[in-house]
Amino acid sequence: MSLLRHDWTTNEWVIFAPEREHRLHGRLPSASRPSEYPAASAEGCPFCPGNEDPAAKEIHVVREGAPPGSAWSVRVVPNKFPALRIEEDYHRRTESHLFRSMGGCGAHEVVVESPHHTLPLALQPVAQIERVLGALHERFVDLLRDKRFPSIVVFKNHGESAGTSLRHPHWQIIATAIVPRLLRAKHAVALDFYDRNGVCLYGALLEEEIAAGTRVIAANADFVAVAPYASHTAYEVWILPRAHRASFGHTTYEELSALAALLKDVLARLFSALDDPAYNLTIDTAPRGDEGEAFLWHMRIVPRLTTPAGFELGSGMSINTVLPETAAETLRAVAIG
Amino acid sequence: MSLLRHDWTTNEWVIFAPEREHRLHGRLPSASRPSEYPAASAEGCPFCPGNEDPAAKEIHVVREGAPPGSAWSVRVVPNKFPALRIEEDYHRRTESHLFRSMGGCGAHEVVVESPHHTLPLALQPVAQIERVLGALHERFVDLLRDKRFPSIVVFKNHGESAGTSLRHPHWQIIATAIVPRLLRAKHAVALDFYDRNGVCLYGALLEEEIAAGTRVIAANADFVAVAPYASHTAYEVWILPRAHRASFGHTTYEELSALAALLKDVLARLFSALDDPAYNLTIDTAPRGDEGEAFLWHMRIVPRLTTPAGFELGSGMSINTVLPETAAETLRAVAIG
Repeated sequence: MSLLRHDWTTNEWVIFAPEREHRLHGRLPSASRPSEYPAASAEGCPFCPGNEDPAAKEIHVVREGAPPGSAWSVRVVPNKFPALRIEEDYHRRTESHLFRSMGGCGAHEVVVESPHHTLPLALQPVAQIERVLGALHERFVDLLRDKRFPSIVVFKNHGESAGTSLRHPHWQIIATAIVPRLLRAKHAVALDFYDRNGVCLYGALLEEEIAAGTRVIAANADFVAVAPYASHTAYEVWILPRAHRASFGHTTYEELSALAALLKDVLARLFSALDDPAYNLTIDTAPRGDEGEAFLWHMRIVPRLTTPAGFELGSGMSINTVLPETAAETLRAVAIG
Repeated sequence: MSLLRHDWTTNEWVIFAPEREHRLHGRLPSASRPSEYPAASAEGCPFCPGNEDPAAKEIHVVREGAPPGSAWSVRVVPNKFPALRIEEDYHRRTESHLFRSMGGCGAHEVVVESPHHTLPLALQPVAQIERVLGALHERFVDLLRDKRFPSIVVFKNHGESAGTSLRHPHWQIIATAIVPRLLRAKHAVALDFYDRNGVCLYGALLEEEIAAGTRVIAANADFVAVAPYASHTAYEVWILPRAHRASFGHTTYEELSALAALLKDVLARLFSALDDPAYNLTIDTAPRGDEGEAFLWHMRIVPRLTTPAGFELGSGMSINTVLPETAAETLRAVAIG
């Protein structure tokens, strides 16, 4: 059973999920735990075809494109060690004057992106990436129908140093009963910009990136991939839609196809230039009720090449050793295809 | 030569320091670099006695308590690959309508905490920890005299997974020509609380932690160590002064002695309970000009037991698998002496 506690000093909510300590890599202390990643073998992998838990609910399944030996090509199941649960409540409780908590209400799903145990997303065919994005979109729209969840974080961790506990390629979706502080703050900044300038901040930034050209990595009719001007980390890549879409949920099926092609292109470049780097991928999208003109949803791909340390923790600032112009030039120069 | 770039989407400044890519662990891609940590041997270590670079400036030195074979017990030198430099300018430059940068003006110093190559701070005698804190305090006060630097981050990284690139125990000090956004935001929250309630938020939180008792780990006449109610990470420890001190610079010498004793106590408990965990340690302090009644400086010790991943990156929220009451109980139970 999980709960959230309010941090007065930053106005953030922290999720406490003691049960997650039992999953593969959550055990403490870290120094004495055996490293069970990478598991090259599919034996015992809960995400491999044939190992499906018959007791677990199958939330969503895609059968088109399933390879021989598998009944599915993409499969969505509940996280076995969820950070949040839909059965929990979301009422605020006051434990003392300053200590406030709430129930761990939310949803935590896993999107198994392929029946293949070790094939990274960068090497998947575009058609399979399109199926994965379709399943993510389907779950996003469905979860947002639940009025308790104003915010949904869609993300993927690739590689052990990006925090993956299971090697089999997968995405995760976490729906929360509060809007995370960072998303509120980013939306507030964009809204302020919109109020002053009458245009979307992200659209304006994209226009200037296209005009400058030096940080554009690749593009197609619907999406543009850039190494942003103020990238917080080396080889950070953003993929932004050309049309105004405040929410990932507003993306059309045609746009999802174009996104799959560009995502494949970008991941293949990173795979080749940086030797299959660990990375996190997140979808930044407007919370429900804030899907107006001010915000543009976008995908952030953040390679984990260095370790944030005390300075980053103490200041919130980032130190980036690679200029985005250099990163973009390197990624553009990769011969893919 | 480094520079800062403004991130419109979060109002943060990002430091770009391409030269830091040449230091031991900054090389890319990470997958192909050899791991040179831990270096059990002192051979070639730039922080060991006898290996001092005669060309490098010695910023500050403590000779009291120097062991045989060393001319010093604590030594402060410039960082060889500085993120910021005092020679750079701090004027804002507009590269285009939305792209703004500034020079990499600041200071980046290393405080070598002992002549011993491998002895962790947790196992140092209290007298040596007192000398280290004295040197940090001296440098903090001196750097803050430079009117270009309103903010100073004092921090320590222990262990490879905490981002240390050199094993020899050391602290770092980075002075910046801007106030990092996180520190501005934390101060703004505390100021708002002060305006509403007429008391310091951190002082009020400390009072409630002492009243609850369950999360207090250890204490002495001048400082209290707690696992805070809304700890963002497992076994996070804060050390707060009992007297109101907005800035680390306001700490008296008597208080530094008491702090050394409590810091040793806490680090020894973590060392024993978690088998010498990697950790980051930072000093949160009010920026110059904000040293009023609203903020209380404090030390944060953050063990690196898990890897923040896509959810944390996408939402800014934390998932903590250990309740602070559990962490405090475990740490209190350690027999030290």
